[in-house]
Amino acid sequence: MKSDFDALMQARNLDALMVFGNAEHNPPMTYLTGGGHVSHATLIKKRGEAAILFHGDMERDEAAKSGLKLISYSNYDAVSLYKQANGDSQLAAAMRAELMLKDANVTSGRVGVYGTYDLSAVFGMLMNVQKMLPNIEFVGEAREDSIFMRAMETKDENEITRIRKMGKVTTSVVAKVRDYLTSCNVRDDEVLLNEDGSPLTVGDVHSKIRLWVAEHGAELPSGFIFAIGRDAGVPHSAGTPTDLMKLGQTIVFDIYPAEAGGGYYYDFTRTWSLGYATPEAQELYDQVKEIFDTLNDNFDLNTPFANYNIMTCEYFESKGHQSPLHTSAPVEGYVHSLGHGVGLNIHERPFSGLTAGDDQRLAPGVVITSEPGLYYPEKGMGFRIEDTLWVRPDGKMETLAEYPYDFVLPMKNWKKK
Amino acid sequence: MKSDFDALMQARNLDALMVFGNAEHNPPMTYLTGGGHVSHATLIKKRGEAAILFHGDMERDEAAKSGLKLISYSNYDAVSLYKQANGDSQLAAAMRAELMLKDANVTSGRVGVYGTYDLSAVFGMLMNVQKMLPNIEFVGEAREDSIFMRAMETKDENEITRIRKMGKVTTSVVAKVRDYLTSCNVRDDEVLLNEDGSPLTVGDVHSKIRLWVAEHGAELPSGFIFAIGRDAGVPHSAGTPTDLMKLGQTIVFDIYPAEAGGGYYYDFTRTWSLGYATPEAQELYDQVKEIFDTLNDNFDLNTPFANYNIMTCEYFESKGHQSPLHTSAPVEGYVHSLGHGVGLNIHERPFSGLTAGDDQRLAPGVVITSEPGLYYPEKGMGFRIEDTLWVRPDGKMETLAEYPYDFVLPMKNWKKK
Repeated sequence: MKSDFDALMQARNLDALMVFGNAEHNPPMTYLTGGGHVSHATLIKKRGEAAILFHGDMERDEAAKSGLKLISYSNYDAVSLYKQANGDSQLAAAMRAELMLKDANVTSGRVGVYGTYDLSAVFGMLMNVQKMLPNIEFVGEAREDSIFMRAMETKDENEITRIRKMGKVTTSVVAKVRDYLTSCNVRDDEVLLNEDGSPLTVGDVHSKIRLWVAEHGAELPSGFIFAIGRDAGVPHSAGTPTDLMKLGQTIVFDIYPAEAGGGYYYDFTRTWSLGYATPEAQELYDQVKEIFDTLNDNFDLNTPFANYNIMTCEYFESKGHQSPLHTSAPVEGYVHSLGHGVGLNIHERPFSGLTAGDDQRLAPGVVITSEPGLYYPEKGMGFRIEDTLWVRPDGKMETLAEYPYDFVLPMKNWKKK
Repeated sequence: MKSDFDALMQARNLDALMVFGNAEHNPPMTYLTGGGHVSHATLIKKRGEAAILFHGDMERDEAAKSGLKLISYSNYDAVSLYKQANGDSQLAAAMRAELMLKDANVTSGRVGVYGTYDLSAVFGMLMNVQKMLPNIEFVGEAREDSIFMRAMETKDENEITRIRKMGKVTTSVVAKVRDYLTSCNVRDDEVLLNEDGSPLTVGDVHSKIRLWVAEHGAELPSGFIFAIGRDAGVPHSAGTPTDLMKLGQTIVFDIYPAEAGGGYYYDFTRTWSLGYATPEAQELYDQVKEIFDTLNDNFDLNTPFANYNIMTCEYFESKGHQSPLHTSAPVEGYVHSLGHGVGLNIHERPFSGLTAGDDQRLAPGVVITSEPGLYYPEKGMGFRIEDTLWVRPDGKMETLAEYPYDFVLPMKNWKKK
């Protein structure tokens, strides 16, 4: 949580944090400012002190919504800096950064640098500032273990409210997609039809999903997956737009919308087979559902997340599938890890992979996905079930948006002959 | 244009370029790969040689669409690197980068680094690689003058086609918003009403705009502005969702959608006053329109863009307004610069600010905005008119999407008493 920063900075021997970029679509800046239309900003937080947001003068109203201490860039005369730098705009930017660091009383020590931003400009500027303030050492951190990933790992009530709300958006879009698909007419060759009688394609469904997510004012900043048949068997395939929608094929629908502006995500997957399922598909689905339920029965406070990934590997191996536990980078069977944290990043701590440290636990306040799956691209099928779960302060696990787990979806206008 | 890279690298004494991040929402990577679902990639281009795209193995099909030479990350054994690095994932990433640079035959010289990406992770990694390959000097470039901004400054026919198409999307959404607003019923206190009789808010309009942009399969990756009254007087205020939509107040509607995945932008603004305008607002609008038209009559091939910004400052000062020409960072009057280039970045070269170099000209192939405006937040009003213009190879200026400049929009169900 945000309140952890000073302790985390102390533990990592960081004297200050410097965050660059926009307040939107930039998790570290969004986290500390609350988002909004603040662009090309700089935030400096000295350990033990309040953060200062440096912003363009035209965005002062938006910047003020952050509740942070503000300093306008107009305090640093751009024209005069540019002249002093003999027209070298990178040097002028570095001179301004030097003044900002001094105004934040940061002139020595280890300064962590963060942000999803133009790294060329920031890298070049920092190299210059380093020369101007030789007692500062700028530090970059590995993505999965940065101080932000650590602080973001546990969520407060307000964050849970926002994630839960995205969960409602998610399940309502999923319900709409289900209703839309099961209402379609079906051709003799089991291909679904649009209202105008043309074959329904995966691309048609993609368009509807985008539209219905937008209707809720949400975004799909990391895309989404709606894939059928062989594509459902490749975990990262988003689906091929020209594929026809057919009965009796597995559909993996993995949707992870975020609040507009790159806010909190929800992450959710269902696997469907329209009209009927083949016996083999039904058997594999039932296995995924069985371990999914077993995991829900076993999730326990403060247990390392990776333990449940191992439990999933062992279950699937007991059913004759490959898993990363005894196969390196399998392409069939259970091919990924069990889940990940969700927040302002679609993938964040805690992670559950076999190399995840055992400090990545189901601690109070974490929000994780549980998403076991089976993949058989050569058989033209894939399966994944995923919910987003919150480890509540009382230690109980709570699914943040409930939705049924039906595999076979009956078609309203079609009966098996 | 892309064909300029080797010459630009020579001129800047850059021996190689290294680009980090996803192929989407990351202009340098999008520019060289063409976009698509390629994530956490690395691109290395040695001067005089073809670029190499290093990518995750699961994304090989998407990576192949770039037409670039490909090397899969699976060529570098992640587990063994992680062990060699004693579990330090940042060091392991640096060791992999060292191997990639060697495979690209880049072991010395000046290497420019680029990308909109997690700068903490890349900064930390580059600091490590620098130690491993001491004959390499990593170089960051100022945003507005980077080799990418230079290459992107002039567009080819294909880029113009894509920008023009986004222009059509933009004006069709704007037309729909206009139609929606002017069809509303109006309460006695001049507040617009929703169909259910509740007051129409700025937030309601924001939702419609998002929906209609999504209907076209386009995105709003940098947001948009639909602001009324005082917010219209603050150039970068996105609008307050709870504000009520009222007659006779200035509305600034600045919309800049991009192709899905973070492709080419269009940039467009109109200022409206619903039902009627106050005489003061009409007078200020007319001034903005007058200089807007004068600029269109005067834009001339190869003239420095900043000259037209100065012309705009002088015009507004002659009408008694403040401008940056003689006031430092004014908050009233004409408070920004005239315009900017548009492409994969919403703001790119050429720039028109008072410090923009006179090499930023209306050269053949550039695409610019012209967007004079006046801002009076304390009077509760603001004005801006903006089109996106292409300097054609034949030297003529062309507005890429035509749309009317009406200020007062008559309401269909309301007449002034």
